[in-house]
Amino acid sequence: MAVKIEGGVTAPKGFTASGVHCGIRRNRTKRDLALILSDRPASAAAVYTQNLVKGAPLTVTKNHLENGTARAVIVNSGIANTCAADGIEKAEAMCRLTAEALGIDQNDVLVASTGVIGPSIVLEPIEKGIPALVAQLSKDGGENAAEAIMTTDTVKKEFAYAVTLGGVECVLGGIAKGSGMIAPNMATMLCFLTTDAAIDSRLLDEALHEVVGDTFNMMSVDGDTSTNDNVMLLANGAAGNRPITEKDADYTAFVEALHALCADLCRRLAKDGEGATKLLEIKVHGAKTVSDARLIARSVNRSSLLKAAMFGADANWGRVLCAIGYAGAEVDVTGVQVTFISKAGRVCVCEKGAGIPFDEDIAKTVLTEEDIIIDIVLSDGDAEAVAYGCDLTYDYVKINGDYRT
Amino acid sequence: MAVKIEGGVTAPKGFTASGVHCGIRRNRTKRDLALILSDRPASAAAVYTQNLVKGAPLTVTKNHLENGTARAVIVNSGIANTCAADGIEKAEAMCRLTAEALGIDQNDVLVASTGVIGPSIVLEPIEKGIPALVAQLSKDGGENAAEAIMTTDTVKKEFAYAVTLGGVECVLGGIAKGSGMIAPNMATMLCFLTTDAAIDSRLLDEALHEVVGDTFNMMSVDGDTSTNDNVMLLANGAAGNRPITEKDADYTAFVEALHALCADLCRRLAKDGEGATKLLEIKVHGAKTVSDARLIARSVNRSSLLKAAMFGADANWGRVLCAIGYAGAEVDVTGVQVTFISKAGRVCVCEKGAGIPFDEDIAKTVLTEEDIIIDIVLSDGDAEAVAYGCDLTYDYVKINGDYRT
Repeated sequence: MAVKIEGGVTAPKGFTASGVHCGIRRNRTKRDLALILSDRPASAAAVYTQNLVKGAPLTVTKNHLENGTARAVIVNSGIANTCAADGIEKAEAMCRLTAEALGIDQNDVLVASTGVIGPSIVLEPIEKGIPALVAQLSKDGGENAAEAIMTTDTVKKEFAYAVTLGGVECVLGGIAKGSGMIAPNMATMLCFLTTDAAIDSRLLDEALHEVVGDTFNMMSVDGDTSTNDNVMLLANGAAGNRPITEKDADYTAFVEALHALCADLCRRLAKDGEGATKLLEIKVHGAKTVSDARLIARSVNRSSLLKAAMFGADANWGRVLCAIGYAGAEVDVTGVQVTFISKAGRVCVCEKGAGIPFDEDIAKTVLTEEDIIIDIVLSDGDAEAVAYGCDLTYDYVKINGDYRT
Repeated sequence: MAVKIEGGVTAPKGFTASGVHCGIRRNRTKRDLALILSDRPASAAAVYTQNLVKGAPLTVTKNHLENGTARAVIVNSGIANTCAADGIEKAEAMCRLTAEALGIDQNDVLVASTGVIGPSIVLEPIEKGIPALVAQLSKDGGENAAEAIMTTDTVKKEFAYAVTLGGVECVLGGIAKGSGMIAPNMATMLCFLTTDAAIDSRLLDEALHEVVGDTFNMMSVDGDTSTNDNVMLLANGAAGNRPITEKDADYTAFVEALHALCADLCRRLAKDGEGATKLLEIKVHGAKTVSDARLIARSVNRSSLLKAAMFGADANWGRVLCAIGYAGAEVDVTGVQVTFISKAGRVCVCEKGAGIPFDEDIAKTVLTEEDIIIDIVLSDGDAEAVAYGCDLTYDYVKINGDYRT
């Protein structure tokens, strides 16, 4: 049973982090360079964007992860290092400079960038910033790292969970950034996860892919998939648990804790979506297959009409049904039940695929809350899925309509 | 060679139409019931929404079209007759009442409804309205019919084209409505096409499907697919051309005219999209296959980020490239060229998949126009596609955020 605790990437034993302003961004008060370090080699896994346009740092990180281990992660915000001719070379240089400063193997450094697509990244500020970054590495540095990776984010995203594995308390922590799935012409969602649990790198990779499929891949602010989306997970074994080498109870408990951590980060990311005023959780039950459940949850989560209705606290169930209908999933639309749920209460608006009478005032009260669950019960099977999203607001249009002007 | 002429559904010989206010809508100044009549049996074809949730009128129209002929189309706005238990029965009743008033076979009447999803439709006002509707049938009635089918539309959509087939001048005309792909919980896009050309009903069906695939199916206001989307085409042969019975030059000329007519209606529909201030035409060239070209055009056309950027006249090419990258098409992203075009000029912003220097002021001038072409040249083949869309604005959110309040 995973328990939420304070902190982020530095909550697990053996991890330190830091974040500084090195000058990639003009705003001197905004940190723009982050470093996460494990005091020993860590099993490492990563999941990358499925966009055909990929940031150069992803390619370099992929190469450095071939041996399944890593020590450090260097991240900048401001420039995405994507669609630039010298991208790979610059990303490798970021790893080399970091490795030299830390006295570790360049191949043990992972790299990520977020920011504007197109411009080639300038190494000078990074080179100047790295000594300070290394000097400031500490157990308290996680928050600065979380701030350094932010772009249009309005709040830091960091969470941590404790879970007992083989009688030993292990900790998982994470930080993330991202506001639009692409923030204003930025290449966006980045997440860095750490744990002091000992786990075989093959199982670590499997666990990460399983959890990302249920969490980050089910999140949408505006349906766009960034060129730099990337989730990294380092496990350094500092907790001293008996290493997880098979899919036993410990593995299950680890995955459960990882899922709780990633779900929290997704909720925070979605709720901080560009211009968003509400967090939407689309919960689908009774689907024929998990794939059908995900198609439906994603389709409802992507409907601009429904997102705008949620902004207006309008219990517009017709839009939910419609999005289910064009989801491309195998579903009996005459067996659909839809309920809106928030801490103010719950109101069922649709049964057997048709509207039922409901109290508009209660519906308004339920939907005026910040955290809304759209609960969809199908009659096709017992598969489930959850999608994380937000409402569509004037500010989304404002932010994305004149970002560069 | 098709030539644009005045008028809409009544421009072709042998067609009359009318539109009245019968009382389905409270607003007495808004016509809400339309009728289109051919003075002789017409070959008829239709294309229906792919949404699994389908309006009852579609089912009835489908049945009545099994013999490939029709005489009349009855349409109401205000209530979609969708997700209501008595839908089929009511839709059949609308056909029966119309057939009785016209003295024709109920099976020769097609039916469509647009409006709120859920409530069951009331027959009384329709029954009361039909006599006036029949009495007012005329060659000038097309405009009233175009008005009667409008919901949140701000402008009427009607166009007509003349084309010479076998030495005889034939006319094609059409009216359409739709503002969101679903307007505020409405079931939306309807299009009624007429022609006095004589053409075999099987070929008519083939021509309609071919053209709809290139036009209406490539149009998006907000990516939502309505439960009532429906395009109908009646061909009554009143022009006296030698009937088109094979895929000869006449068939090709007919398809070309039909395409021009439908493309005009799509442009008008997209430009009148909810809250829209701009028409966007996404033109894709050099794709490997037509399917790839359509995937890419649709993906770019659906990007909320790009749509918001167009609202802000922001030449944000990164968003175009990103949407190409996640389109799911087979494409070499290092061979992409992007150019923004309007009557104010053209500005190329991306070549070989990377940004190129361009004059921001010129770009601003180009994108400040109302009609924007986003021209995408790929290096993968010679397949092409065009998508029709609009920008994303504050008003879209306003219209859809509090429609029912």
